[in-house]
Amino acid sequence: MSSMKGFIHHVYFWLKNPGNQQDTQKLIKGLQGMGKIKTIKEFHIGRPADTKRDVIDSSYAVSWMLVFKNKDEQEKYQTDPIHLKFIEDCKDLWSKVVVYDSVNAV
Amino acid sequence: MSSMKGFIHHVYFWLKNPGNQQDTQKLIKGLQGMGKIKTIKEFHIGRPADTKRDVIDSSYAVSWMLVFKNKDEQEKYQTDPIHLKFIEDCKDLWSKVVVYDSVNAV
Repeated sequence: MSSMKGFIHHVYFWLKNPGNQQDTQKLIKGLQGMGKIKTIKEFHIGRPADTKRDVIDSSYAVSWMLVFKNKDEQEKYQTDPIHLKFIEDCKDLWSKVVVYDSVNAV
Repeated sequence: MSSMKGFIHHVYFWLKNPGNQQDTQKLIKGLQGMGKIKTIKEFHIGRPADTKRDVIDSSYAVSWMLVFKNKDEQEKYQTDPIHLKFIEDCKDLWSKVVVYDSVNAV
């Protein structure tokens, strides 16, 4: 019931080898390592829930939701060496990435 | 830098009249009204940020991100009278809804 403020950066990953547990765990481990990036206020590493309705997309493999104070902090994250190393280490795992960036509407 | 636990329910709305400020504000006001639903731990009402990269989808109108303790709490929300009234009041505004539900990966 509490309103969250900030810049939400939500990334959904689809894997080249969907269902491959080793690849999934490597990606999750890489994301965990990024948790220590200082500009990130909060993060959530997710897998699709077992909810089913027409509007629900559960085809992705891993969800990476980040809360930043503002857009500037998110931009610092984009070029943080830990983030760049994650991309280098894990980019071969995914086939598709979709990102939704949201700022406070109210 | 703090790890968030819980069930993330992230909804993206596309409007029948994209760019229509009255419709956008009606939807946002409806979402604000849902903030008082007791099973919601945290919520964020968002608009697309002005970030631009190939992977970023900024075509939606409004983002509604909810944190629940677990799947059961999310299911209670689905049938909460305040939620059902919101759908009744606002369903004519949107042309498309995409939902991603995520549980803790770690």
